[in-house]
Amino acid sequence: MKNGSIFCIFAVQNLSTMIEKSVYQEYLEPHGVDFTLHATIASLGEVILNRAGEDAHRHGFGIDVLFPQNLTWVLSRMSMEFEWRPEQYSHYKLETWVSDYNRILSTRNFVLSDEQGEVFGHAVTQWTMIDMKKRSFVDLTDVCEAHNTAIVDEPSPIERPRKIRNVSPTRYTQHQVVYTDIDFNRHVNTMRYIEMMLNMLPLERLTEQRPVRVDVHFLHESHYGQVLTIGLEEREGSDWFEVKAEDGTPCVRASFEWK
Amino acid sequence: MKNGSIFCIFAVQNLSTMIEKSVYQEYLEPHGVDFTLHATIASLGEVILNRAGEDAHRHGFGIDVLFPQNLTWVLSRMSMEFEWRPEQYSHYKLETWVSDYNRILSTRNFVLSDEQGEVFGHAVTQWTMIDMKKRSFVDLTDVCEAHNTAIVDEPSPIERPRKIRNVSPTRYTQHQVVYTDIDFNRHVNTMRYIEMMLNMLPLERLTEQRPVRVDVHFLHESHYGQVLTIGLEEREGSDWFEVKAEDGTPCVRASFEWK
Repeated sequence: MKNGSIFCIFAVQNLSTMIEKSVYQEYLEPHGVDFTLHATIASLGEVILNRAGEDAHRHGFGIDVLFPQNLTWVLSRMSMEFEWRPEQYSHYKLETWVSDYNRILSTRNFVLSDEQGEVFGHAVTQWTMIDMKKRSFVDLTDVCEAHNTAIVDEPSPIERPRKIRNVSPTRYTQHQVVYTDIDFNRHVNTMRYIEMMLNMLPLERLTEQRPVRVDVHFLHESHYGQVLTIGLEEREGSDWFEVKAEDGTPCVRASFEWK
Repeated sequence: MKNGSIFCIFAVQNLSTMIEKSVYQEYLEPHGVDFTLHATIASLGEVILNRAGEDAHRHGFGIDVLFPQNLTWVLSRMSMEFEWRPEQYSHYKLETWVSDYNRILSTRNFVLSDEQGEVFGHAVTQWTMIDMKKRSFVDLTDVCEAHNTAIVDEPSPIERPRKIRNVSPTRYTQHQVVYTDIDFNRHVNTMRYIEMMLNMLPLERLTEQRPVRVDVHFLHESHYGQVLTIGLEEREGSDWFEVKAEDGTPCVRASFEWK
């Protein structure tokens, strides 16, 4: 048994009846749009991940509580669906909740809607808790009472993130990981991977505002100075990516399905 | 003489006694920090430029008014000085005002201070107005009454941006302009140039939190697909950059003086 206030052996599931979804009011600043003045996929993803961190913090299981115990949350998989993307300077609402967890994965969900209440986006993120000293997973059913009592009994609003196993790229680019790519863990920031991928697509694909489903599957972290190879396989109506390190280790796979 | 509501021949200077500085309350989100959890130079610069646009809009001389007349503001030069950089999730205040203009340049100033009122940053930006059809400068003394009556009679808080004439690089990197680099004009976003430059410096330089003065001198826009060469000249206590297009045209020069 670990010490520290967030831990207990007998965490109880389904104490969720009194817990409500969290609601955040968002504002789309110029840095979040592309030259069409609509939000980019990466900037919406960034807001989603920022609110995941902030909401975990507000509920007492953020990295501020975990870090001193050599623990951290690591994003394992993510799915996002956008019907359309809002315009610069628009206000929108983000709702988020943790719906459930098992030994390995905690599932956090998101619904994004405009000022008229029309839903334009959904996301599902799945997180593991890592012991940074032992470099091993922490069993979520054993620990972290603050997390385990914060469950809201409402299922994920879209299909959960898919495991992506086979990508057969036909085009490649390389990217050396630089200062502006790395996050607080000194690993490549999730949305920087997404940007590296999107930058391989034709501009028209990115700006025609087609509805899109994105699945991201994280396999291995990458670090400052590494040279990544981003491979793209173009299929009918979808784009599939695999990012590999110099030694061939797959770091991330992702798919973008344009509807 | 042009038509359109923002134009007049006899714009009057120094109607400034009733005009006050604008004040914006800022909040440092995770996307604005590096792995030290302090704001990056580029993210503070981005906030500064975003507020320039927003404040011009609020005073009736933003690009929303200019675009329909085939006019736009283009950033010509910029200086920034940061004594220190705030931490993630901190709140700070940004004050901005246009202090003066001449035929070619409008000068907008910025002061950034923390919640205790301690000033940690200053900036001066100088803008030209461009006729996009004629591809020529617009004489600011002839036009744009909304701008010319918005002057606040307080001088720039730091030395104005320097013209940077001679940079003799000894190290180079190349960068192909991609989707995530370009702004609403389809030109490379100002702060993306800054990031390309900073990414050439050792991590220690960027994270040791030394006070810094930055001067940026824009010479020519660059576009999607172009391959830029970023050259670095390291001098004692300062780093000097020149970004060139394929044909050798200088696009931007900048200096970072670490105090």
